[in-house]
Amino acid sequence: MRKHIVIVGGVAGGMSAATRLRRLDEEASIVVLERSGHVSFANCGLPYHLGGVIEERSALLLQTPESLAARFALDVRVHHEVVSVDRSARTVTVRDLATGTTGELPYDALVLSPGARPVLPPVPGLEVAHTLRDVEDLDRLVAATGGARSAVVVGGGFIGVEVAENLLRLGIAVTLVEAAGQVLAPLDPEMVQPLHDVLREAGVDLALGASVERVEPADGPGGEHAVHLSDGRVVPAEVVVAAVGVRPESGLAQAAGLDVGERGGILVDESFRTSDPSIFAVGDAVEKTDGLDGSAVLVPLANTANRQGRVVADVIAGRPGRDRAVLGTAVVGVLGVAAATVGWTEKRLRAAGRPHRVVHIHPGSHAGYYPGAHPLALKLLVDPATDEILGAQAVGRDGADKRIDVIATAMAGGLTASDLAELELAYAPQFGSAKDPVNMLGWVARALAAGDVETLQWHELDDALAAGATLVDVRSPQEHADRPLPGALKLPVDELRDRLAELPAGPLVVHCEVGLRGYVAARLLAQHGREVRNLDGGYRTWRAGTAAVRGAEVSARA
Amino acid sequence: MRKHIVIVGGVAGGMSAATRLRRLDEEASIVVLERSGHVSFANCGLPYHLGGVIEERSALLLQTPESLAARFALDVRVHHEVVSVDRSARTVTVRDLATGTTGELPYDALVLSPGARPVLPPVPGLEVAHTLRDVEDLDRLVAATGGARSAVVVGGGFIGVEVAENLLRLGIAVTLVEAAGQVLAPLDPEMVQPLHDVLREAGVDLALGASVERVEPADGPGGEHAVHLSDGRVVPAEVVVAAVGVRPESGLAQAAGLDVGERGGILVDESFRTSDPSIFAVGDAVEKTDGLDGSAVLVPLANTANRQGRVVADVIAGRPGRDRAVLGTAVVGVLGVAAATVGWTEKRLRAAGRPHRVVHIHPGSHAGYYPGAHPLALKLLVDPATDEILGAQAVGRDGADKRIDVIATAMAGGLTASDLAELELAYAPQFGSAKDPVNMLGWVARALAAGDVETLQWHELDDALAAGATLVDVRSPQEHADRPLPGALKLPVDELRDRLAELPAGPLVVHCEVGLRGYVAARLLAQHGREVRNLDGGYRTWRAGTAAVRGAEVSARA
Repeated sequence: MRKHIVIVGGVAGGMSAATRLRRLDEEASIVVLERSGHVSFANCGLPYHLGGVIEERSALLLQTPESLAARFALDVRVHHEVVSVDRSARTVTVRDLATGTTGELPYDALVLSPGARPVLPPVPGLEVAHTLRDVEDLDRLVAATGGARSAVVVGGGFIGVEVAENLLRLGIAVTLVEAAGQVLAPLDPEMVQPLHDVLREAGVDLALGASVERVEPADGPGGEHAVHLSDGRVVPAEVVVAAVGVRPESGLAQAAGLDVGERGGILVDESFRTSDPSIFAVGDAVEKTDGLDGSAVLVPLANTANRQGRVVADVIAGRPGRDRAVLGTAVVGVLGVAAATVGWTEKRLRAAGRPHRVVHIHPGSHAGYYPGAHPLALKLLVDPATDEILGAQAVGRDGADKRIDVIATAMAGGLTASDLAELELAYAPQFGSAKDPVNMLGWVARALAAGDVETLQWHELDDALAAGATLVDVRSPQEHADRPLPGALKLPVDELRDRLAELPAGPLVVHCEVGLRGYVAARLLAQHGREVRNLDGGYRTWRAGTAAVRGAEVSARA
Repeated sequence: MRKHIVIVGGVAGGMSAATRLRRLDEEASIVVLERSGHVSFANCGLPYHLGGVIEERSALLLQTPESLAARFALDVRVHHEVVSVDRSARTVTVRDLATGTTGELPYDALVLSPGARPVLPPVPGLEVAHTLRDVEDLDRLVAATGGARSAVVVGGGFIGVEVAENLLRLGIAVTLVEAAGQVLAPLDPEMVQPLHDVLREAGVDLALGASVERVEPADGPGGEHAVHLSDGRVVPAEVVVAAVGVRPESGLAQAAGLDVGERGGILVDESFRTSDPSIFAVGDAVEKTDGLDGSAVLVPLANTANRQGRVVADVIAGRPGRDRAVLGTAVVGVLGVAAATVGWTEKRLRAAGRPHRVVHIHPGSHAGYYPGAHPLALKLLVDPATDEILGAQAVGRDGADKRIDVIATAMAGGLTASDLAELELAYAPQFGSAKDPVNMLGWVARALAAGDVETLQWHELDDALAAGATLVDVRSPQEHADRPLPGALKLPVDELRDRLAELPAGPLVVHCEVGLRGYVAARLLAQHGREVRNLDGGYRTWRAGTAAVRGAEVSARA
């Protein structure tokens, strides 16, 4: 019997489901209903067409209803909105947005892939703000930015920083307003501090710890809105873009009586079946299962949506299909610097009260003796009891995405933090190091697990010094002079053996530039009976962390 | 009691052992004996200083005896050769190569890290050839290439192609002679064909399937040697470089009566202990354990040596220490194209009679709609019974190293080929695709495992057609005209449903450009009851494979 499958939403998850269903079932009737005017468009490319990096708008339109009909015999209807679901009759009511007429469609299986919609905070006047979800939004934003000279972007998440960067490309002065003390919430503050730096260096007015209190709309077209910030400033902006996050588009599901979770996402089982066995849901609209603690999470990512779409096609075609819980691996590029992340952050672990060990390193993206290496900041979070990898973050001009992909794969394979030391990673001097940054994370994790060294985090230093520890800078005198950490004794690691007697009694904290010489010094001192901790990540992590805190405080005070 | 540790060889494995030993044992006496004039030099950077990419020779010298004494209290003696080991007395006899005097050194633990020496084939006259193992070799080669205009490089392995590339940078005409039909033996021929192309395009005279029969030395300095090849040609060359491989430097071990394996490497247990419990060996000089079948293998790689050096330090310091078997993950850059590999090749699997499934794909290095994406050729080898990943290869201008690192990590974590489909990899359009190339490998592997599609390898096509199958090109007419595969019917995938009747009876082979439309066509045809196979990797893999075979044959015939 010919199956009737109706799919709501024709982008990542929905279209992946549709095309795979056709490959599995040549006979089925497959109708894809998309409210906007486009299907299979490159969501993640929208900000880059705004800035002209992707020159041709048509490059974003990966498929059309016609191409999908020809190749996959799909019945794709754009400008068609599903307004209700009759679960007992197994029909949906569809409105043709072009004509205003409605009709019914029967289904044997219904797949909901409506995505998530941008949140617009309830701020007076903020309705003038653009959001960036689909091609129509993009067209409006492109029109609005033509000739504009000033913009405010509200929200410093992945989309917010991408939009800010692309507005800069258009020569527009940008103020980026972020309520938290940092951009990119899926990373910790000391990791994103380099991004604060590049954004500011590029001319972005970065308002951290600030929010928009109201917007006075411009008098007319081409005029400037007055954006009132919580820090008291009034920023003029011809264009306002709101990118404060997204909310699952679960209204249709809710109206149909399907179960929806506390976070507002449609609830599905591991085969993406909703509380109605004939109805499935995938992508940004559903609640996913966290890979570490099994809790419900919202992870609006295109690759996850694609994967889920494929699985749901398998299930509908009568095959076994399930998907893993999500780790939320993600990357974003900001003015040439990549920030990548997987798993939990330190702040999330701390908030959850989950014990964790932290490792910061600053290796080169490839061998230092080969030209073109860039520093890479890497962070690893480890369960101290089990050595399980809880999360990782990487920031740098080159190689950040690679290292996070490797660690995400290690997590998927159940490798421990110590196992990272043994990974065989491809090495030639253009591509990596004989001691790859990921191996180095593993070695540090092993040293901590073995008790070879104790480390101190940047945010623990003040307390340690207040409790009487002596801080020792084991770098060269020149490095100390150039980049001092206040209050440190100077004693270069290469002179340490001969000058042990100069160190005062009591606990010591050693530090160097990135943590490596500090580790050597700590091993030496520990073997000479001293109580010593190494400042994790060295001066560089300390500086980034304290600058992040200070920046947030300054913004909050202002 | 103070331990006396003697280490033979001061580069990767030896020096990693020495420095870690000091971090674990502040009291030990640690003597490092190095025959050449340098320790801790950047082995893998040598070819790049030759070509001037690494401008300063000093950049290759990562440490000196003085710096190692200051930081790690190591007694490092360059120009010192260990000439014999007295195992019962636990002493080594050391010759000071500068003075010619010899002396004895006692040891509690002896670590052999002598590396591997370049093989010089027994070809008359080939003693004029340079090899490239250490800084002294490099200095001689730099002197010889100054002003030279012609060179022959014998051997197309990793070092051979790196040397060829760097000679080109000096404006020297290069003939690269390789006895096999392809360069880079750790990859399969169809995968390295793009490298043959770029080498030839850059002007390298690539003599595949050829060997050097004799060399008539030049009359005097600055003259040209006459290099006689097996293809009958006589190539003039001011400089000859031999890079045909390396042999473990196991003479000292052998003379001391330690067990040496069939491949000439020192035999060690998983803690790198030799047949004498006081003597350890690491690095290129030892036989390693293959990660797939547990056989003894020689894998001369710097990162492996470093890892082993650390483990041996742990063992000597009384800690548990063992290392995994090796997968041989490696990468090399050739004129901007990277070739990376892990595990076994198809030719090795075939030679061993080990069943395997092959997958070729040609995705973009990142999302196609974002500028700057390059095609990436990826190959996966899978155990058909267990779905185990047996090996992978990647070739392309960007992202090859990343994908092989991910697959190497998946192999280390015991993930199957199908598991690759579920990996969460970091996606933004500059860095990857929502459907990452590694995910795509997993999907194809799943489709093969599920029997959704049967594929045909490029080297199986002729037999299939001879047996009566019909070849169908499902690309556009223009693609067929531009890049024809001889004898194919033309029937674009998007017209297939309407034109099924045009296909002759009997088995079909479909092909497209890279295998994706072919897969869609094969699914369609199979559901319409046709016996059909998809040409794996499409036209692109077929073309590369047949060109590789033809190139090797042409060279062999010439």
